[in-house]
Amino acid sequence: MSEITVIGLGAMGTALAEAFLNQGYSVTVWNRSPAKAEALAAKGAIVAVSVEEAVRSSPLIVTCLLVYDTVREALGPVAAALSGRTVVNLTNGTPEQAREMSDWAISHGADYIDGGIMAVPPMIGGPHALILYSGSSQAFDACSGQLGALGTSKYLGEDAGLAPLYDISLLTGMYGMFAGTLQALALTGAAGIPAGAFMPLLASWLQAMQGLLPKWAEQIDSGDHTSDVVSNLGMQADAYVNLIDASRSADVSTELVLPMQSLMKRGVAAGQANADLSSLVALLRLSKQGA
Amino acid sequence: MSEITVIGLGAMGTALAEAFLNQGYSVTVWNRSPAKAEALAAKGAIVAVSVEEAVRSSPLIVTCLLVYDTVREALGPVAAALSGRTVVNLTNGTPEQAREMSDWAISHGADYIDGGIMAVPPMIGGPHALILYSGSSQAFDACSGQLGALGTSKYLGEDAGLAPLYDISLLTGMYGMFAGTLQALALTGAAGIPAGAFMPLLASWLQAMQGLLPKWAEQIDSGDHTSDVVSNLGMQADAYVNLIDASRSADVSTELVLPMQSLMKRGVAAGQANADLSSLVALLRLSKQGA
Ligand SMILES: NC(=O)c1ccc[n+]([C@@H]2O[C@H](COP(=O)([O-])OP(=O)(O)OC[C@H]3O[C@@H](n4cnc5c(N)ncnc54)[C@H](OP(=O)(O)O)[C@@H]3O)[C@@H](O)[C@H]2O)c1
Ligand SMILES: NC(=O)c1ccc[n+]([C@@H]2O[C@H](COP(=O)([O-])OP(=O)(O)OC[C@H]3O[C@@H](n4cnc5c(N)ncnc54)[C@H](OP(=O)(O)O)[C@@H]3O)[C@@H](O)[C@H]2O)c1
Repeated sequence: MSEITVIGLGAMGTALAEAFLNQGYSVTVWNRSPAKAEALAAKGAIVAVSVEEAVRSSPLIVTCLLVYDTVREALGPVAAALSGRTVVNLTNGTPEQAREMSDWAISHGADYIDGGIMAVPPMIGGPHALILYSGSSQAFDACSGQLGALGTSKYLGEDAGLAPLYDISLLTGMYGMFAGTLQALALTGAAGIPAGAFMPLLASWLQAMQGLLPKWAEQIDSGDHTSDVVSNLGMQADAYVNLIDASRSADVSTELVLPMQSLMKRGVAAGQANADLSSLVALLRLSKQGA
Repeated sequence: MSEITVIGLGAMGTALAEAFLNQGYSVTVWNRSPAKAEALAAKGAIVAVSVEEAVRSSPLIVTCLLVYDTVREALGPVAAALSGRTVVNLTNGTPEQAREMSDWAISHGADYIDGGIMAVPPMIGGPHALILYSGSSQAFDACSGQLGALGTSKYLGEDAGLAPLYDISLLTGMYGMFAGTLQALALTGAAGIPAGAFMPLLASWLQAMQGLLPKWAEQIDSGDHTSDVVSNLGMQADAYVNLIDASRSADVSTELVLPMQSLMKRGVAAGQANADLSSLVALLRLSKQGA
């Protein structure tokens, strides 16, 4: 018997198992391809020969597989073994998937917590690894000590879908920043500027412009999008044309940047030229649109 | 006569003129709609009655109008008055537009500097307002003291197109981050989460993920995109499906997030599943594609 079982030893699952081991917990591990368990075994992990053995080994089961289908495939056949245990599923998924999995686990007598890992593997175990949790608060309270080995925990509420909702929303913000960064690097690269010369400027610029975002939040919550940084949507839509033109004439694909232009144009057409960009959120909410 | 002329008194031009006045410079201003000059006149600015008078009033002419066409419209008829003066054009434009304007100004006997303002108007005059310059280094050296009134100056080189290139590339990165943020706020908003509750998490997450970007720069410059944060493109492309699904089921438009998915898929199809996201930059450089 062990304290914690980790199912799935990809890049992330391995980091999770290591963090538990580093805190002195006894850990059982299982992975479809057994080779990935070897390094962990050398560090003291017990390697289970089947998912069922892995599940039966600990009261706390942490799953970190590629997608929810994989979790269902792995746990489905051993559902009977889950009863009385707590499943903490850290696989990336949608709120719907998390709620379904929660219902399924509960129906087999398990407590269920869903989680969203806001970190890359090398951060796991350090204070900058934020892990979002939602689902059974009772179960969370009971295992929050162990989960603390992984990083900084944030519990969001009883609805198992909350952690994936926040997770996916945070990833959405990040991929926007990544898409913009890829495009910027393509543009400067096409002009022969080394990425290393441009990146420090981009880093400070992104940080400075993040300073505008708390105001957006206020504007969205109040519904008053009056521009007080005097950088209105109309002016920005005009300058955005230059951004598209610059990509075109540098022979850089505009696929990543065109959609924002059409959204800005829709905002101007909707009479929001003097508002801040925050006013565009409403245009993305399809069910909020009307005749 | 005055030391500096500012042409264009929109939100940004007004902030520029004010910053010069605050540093004790004598400033002449002109704007198409004269009303916008009144507040500056009260602060000591001399209001010119025509563009020509404005140009003839100072050796240093700072233009900040909506787009380059506007600058051409304003300065074109008074080209003869430019001879012997320095034009610092802080209007947002493309590298091509800047080079053309530089040639045109030089052909009329003026020195030309192009600039990119990396700040919103309230930041102007403070150290966090970064202003990029390119064009005549001799002229830049001569007026760098005055330009220092606007914020922190960074001179990029003799090619007038460099400041707009950096400017537009930085804006491109920023608009990516903004697009991602809008989408994230639409998603959380659709679930009834106040923007004010989500934003602090997004802010720290974006900052944490910016920590990955210096490595991207190294990878792009070296051409070796091996993932060392073990967060490979293949896994990310799989998780990205959840992000799209979550928007769809929340009735949030996917227009801003779909293009990144198709780029990631192209990366996977091109055999980059085990590389970092930085490997996608090459796919955006159309002239670099080939059979
Ligand atoms: N890496 C990150 O930066 C990061 C950050 C936050 C969240 N996450 C999330 O964490 C989860 C795992 O990511 P990762 O980076 O560890 O991915 P990974 O390195 O690609 O590992 C994937 C894991 O899933 C297993 N798997 C895949 N298909 C399977 C199947 N049909 N049956 C059984 N096992 C299967 C793999 O087993 P095999 O070894 O046998 O292939 C492996 O253990 C994902 O949901 C990801 O979105 C990752
Ligand atoms: N605001 C920002 O956050 C920011 C940041 C960085 C860079 N910039 C750049 O700074 C420049 C000015 O921006 P802004 O925020 O000051 O814009 P703005 O408030 O919209 O002002 C536009 C200015 O252009 C003038 N103008 C427009 N069309 C004209 C025409 N046909 N003839 C003569 N004048 C004309 C306007 O004169 P009227 O008053 O007569 O309309 C006004 O002075 C733009 O290129 C912008 O991209 C702005």
